[in-house]
Amino acid sequence: MNLQPDFTKGGGLLPAIAQDEKTGEILMLAYMNEEAWEQTLKTGEAHYFSRSRNCLWHKGGTSGNVQIVRSIRLDCDLDALVLQIEQKGGAACHTGHRSCFFHEYNQGQWRECSPVVFDPKEVYK
Amino acid sequence: MNLQPDFTKGGGLLPAIAQDEKTGEILMLAYMNEEAWEQTLKTGEAHYFSRSRNCLWHKGGTSGNVQIVRSIRLDCDLDALVLQIEQKGGAACHTGHRSCFFHEYNQGQWRECSPVVFDPKEVYK
Repeated sequence: MNLQPDFTKGGGLLPAIAQDEKTGEILMLAYMNEEAWEQTLKTGEAHYFSRSRNCLWHKGGTSGNVQIVRSIRLDCDLDALVLQIEQKGGAACHTGHRSCFFHEYNQGQWRECSPVVFDPKEVYK
Repeated sequence: MNLQPDFTKGGGLLPAIAQDEKTGEILMLAYMNEEAWEQTLKTGEAHYFSRSRNCLWHKGGTSGNVQIVRSIRLDCDLDALVLQIEQKGGAACHTGHRSCFFHEYNQGQWRECSPVVFDPKEVYK
């Protein structure tokens, strides 16, 4: 079986979910273009395309919190990815939360649900 | 805390990840517009916006395999969602696989990784 994500979809950007390989926690969602995909395969560390900075983004390149890719899943339509990763530094979010998905809605209430692992002021100096 | 997904991003469509509330398995990724978001909150069952059919999509409306939403997570940028769900019928994918992410890449090889739960020919008659 030889498969490729279909980068003709989504204007060349596909959503990529980073999931903790051990706990199954969803840590973040970012986007990959073909270059990010190729760099991820080549290096074994997650690369994305930053929509805000409009460039290739080696996740953790600034903070040191890189994502070691253990396996990759591709969906039925070949247009969404899951990266099963080991998150260095213990946090994926630039706010210092372990997961970017730290707002939880349940029974009509929003609350914070993911611990703060680092102080962003200390990491991004 | 009062939060709302920011539907001004992504052309009005935000990615929504459906995750099995018990196992943590990622079952699918689809898109929500504001109407899908409101219908999901109102009914407690996942609604998406179908990009291929260009309309509101009540997941499981045809197959009966609805998704009961137990909680919702929103990310730091307010532009991606996780639905923690109970998947009725045991499968999220129209192919009959439990997860749409049934292609796994590991050590240079693609293989299937999610069991087939139903025969789509029997469900979509």
